[in-house]
Amino acid sequence: MVEKPAPDATRRSEKSRRAIYDAALALVVEAGYRRTTIEGIAARAGVGKQTIYRWWSSKAEVLLDAFLDLGEQAAGQAGQQPYEIPDTGDLAADLKAVLRATVDELLDPRFDAPYRALAAEGVVNERLGREFVARLLLPALELYVRRLRAAQAAGAVRADVDPRVALELFVSPLAQRWLQHTGPISHAYTDTLVDYALYGIAPR
Amino acid sequence: MVEKPAPDATRRSEKSRRAIYDAALALVVEAGYRRTTIEGIAARAGVGKQTIYRWWSSKAEVLLDAFLDLGEQAAGQAGQQPYEIPDTGDLAADLKAVLRATVDELLDPRFDAPYRALAAEGVVNERLGREFVARLLLPALELYVRRLRAAQAAGAVRADVDPRVALELFVSPLAQRWLQHTGPISHAYTDTLVDYALYGIAPR
Repeated sequence: MVEKPAPDATRRSEKSRRAIYDAALALVVEAGYRRTTIEGIAARAGVGKQTIYRWWSSKAEVLLDAFLDLGEQAAGQAGQQPYEIPDTGDLAADLKAVLRATVDELLDPRFDAPYRALAAEGVVNERLGREFVARLLLPALELYVRRLRAAQAAGAVRADVDPRVALELFVSPLAQRWLQHTGPISHAYTDTLVDYALYGIAPR
Repeated sequence: MVEKPAPDATRRSEKSRRAIYDAALALVVEAGYRRTTIEGIAARAGVGKQTIYRWWSSKAEVLLDAFLDLGEQAAGQAGQQPYEIPDTGDLAADLKAVLRATVDELLDPRFDAPYRALAAEGVVNERLGREFVARLLLPALELYVRRLRAAQAAGAVRADVDPRVALELFVSPLAQRWLQHTGPISHAYTDTLVDYALYGIAPR
């Protein structure tokens, strides 16, 4: 891809923005969300506090943008932009693969610390929570909706099933175990969730 | 039940404890978790700060005990102590009934505010989170495990299903919608979750 040469000012502010994201994510991992401050982020990024306040109004907003950027970079490196859940024709296998990848991400401290901090802040701070959900969680859920609709078209999911509710059968248990420490998470666990969700727990 | 007459000191401290619980719950509902302080609870309860610190080390601990007590009182008034999920022989109907009651509770501000505050604090404060889960969430999940085991014995759930995982198909989606505002909660919603979990979303 050919990039247009950026004017100096744009290049400088891109560099500052990147430094601020890196500093915010590093501080949350090392010191925790509560001990992360705008001042601390500015000092570590080598910018003035006013540079941060020009773009964001709180550390939660900085962290939300930094985390979204982290996800976009990871997806870009993996050549998955824009990302879709694979459709190999085997719904169970496709869902298991994407949930296994999610487990790996949730167990990676680089993702876990900022994601957990944002999720927690979102629970008590309703405005941030709704932004976190709208920008981060709902777009991810929409990918499952599209994959389940394709499965309905292929006859692998009943036509009367609401995909937006059905996806929660495997997504929400993983989210709750991770967020509330109600149980361990593993590939075997998410595989089981997919099997139960597709085939039900009652005898067939 | 015949109660032993309490010595004056015990009666006085029971009365203080009750006043502290009431004050803590009322403050969290009215002012929010962040603006609730030990000082504020003490003032409203008409006790000294040191009375609170004699029994608890933080406002989170006070609130956890107050909330557990609220649940016990509600269950006691409804004659449901010790509580079990009903077994009418119709698993779907029994699960739908208990989840509908849970929806009603989650939509009741008296429960919502303290429960949400504790859940949020538990996400970032791992020690409190584990105590919250151990004392409040896991005992509730255990009731579903027992009901699903009875269903397995009656042939209504496959023998190879792990009840501890299976219950998450309907409990976790409700928990996530409520906690993270990812969607509305209603009786129709939890009824649908139970149907999907029991019979699966793939054609039978």
